[in-house]
Amino acid sequence: MITVLRLGHRVFRDQRVTTHCALVARAFGANKIIYSGERDKSLENSVKKVTKQWGGPFGIYYTGNYRKYIKRFRGIKVHLTVYGLPFQKNMTKLKKVKEIMLIVGGEKVPPDVYRMADFNLAVTQQPHSEVAALALFLHEYFQGKELNKDFKKAKLEVVPQQRGKMLKKL
Amino acid sequence: MITVLRLGHRVFRDQRVTTHCALVARAFGANKIIYSGERDKSLENSVKKVTKQWGGPFGIYYTGNYRKYIKRFRGIKVHLTVYGLPFQKNMTKLKKVKEIMLIVGGEKVPPDVYRMADFNLAVTQQPHSEVAALALFLHEYFQGKELNKDFKKAKLEVVPQQRGKMLKKL
Repeated sequence: MITVLRLGHRVFRDQRVTTHCALVARAFGANKIIYSGERDKSLENSVKKVTKQWGGPFGIYYTGNYRKYIKRFRGIKVHLTVYGLPFQKNMTKLKKVKEIMLIVGGEKVPPDVYRMADFNLAVTQQPHSEVAALALFLHEYFQGKELNKDFKKAKLEVVPQQRGKMLKKL
Repeated sequence: MITVLRLGHRVFRDQRVTTHCALVARAFGANKIIYSGERDKSLENSVKKVTKQWGGPFGIYYTGNYRKYIKRFRGIKVHLTVYGLPFQKNMTKLKKVKEIMLIVGGEKVPPDVYRMADFNLAVTQQPHSEVAALALFLHEYFQGKELNKDFKKAKLEVVPQQRGKMLKKL
């Protein structure tokens, strides 16, 4: 079970990046995403719509109190941050863990998040994107098996093509 | 040499996602990003600023005619699209190629891009993010070696920490 926690969402500025985080979480095998910051019904609806069409299970939820949420979580809490230790060196350990919370920032992550996390891990020591960090972490955690994940109750499916587009209605 | 081509940039809607594409391209070992669509000086400046501070070489360029650009490119053109064939099955072949153009859409990719590309490849058959698709492709292409890439002329460097933040000025 992987839960993604996205901190400090801002409706106007972050809508697309948070949507990408949610879709990556779903596509790469996480079970749900919780977000904090500003509540955003349009974000929730677009993620729910993708899950309804392309399958699940996957959920998106809002929390007004992410600290309580982190503290109560039973499992290992991994904060993805450029300032952390190289994630690839901790992967052997983490692959054995069944219940993980993956925390990704927002613009400014408060210092206590670094303390509440069991691991602060970096996906490269370079500034890039929480979307990419999430994808890389999940890819290594699931060892590439997520690329063939089967989604339940999907109404749509891509039929891979060398050229062009083909969708199958299920 | 990896060149990323980002199609159909829109200043208002895509600024952050295109910025993430550019930063991922840089952080995961591509040499440059070309973008088409609307010219966006603010995007260019923010990417140049990151390269100046964190090192390179990495370039961002605008093209008003991406079709000419694709046609003239000497190397293998890979279009990343959810409709394509699973990328992981073509990786052995592509790892031998030295000059690659990685094309990522915009909202609507015109049909001729599918035809001009040598490969149309999907990073999962699920809708997610061009940012994640780029990162995964580069990670598999460089076989994880990009995670330790050395950047030239960097003025800033992260000193990895278990908790907290440490930056070193070079």
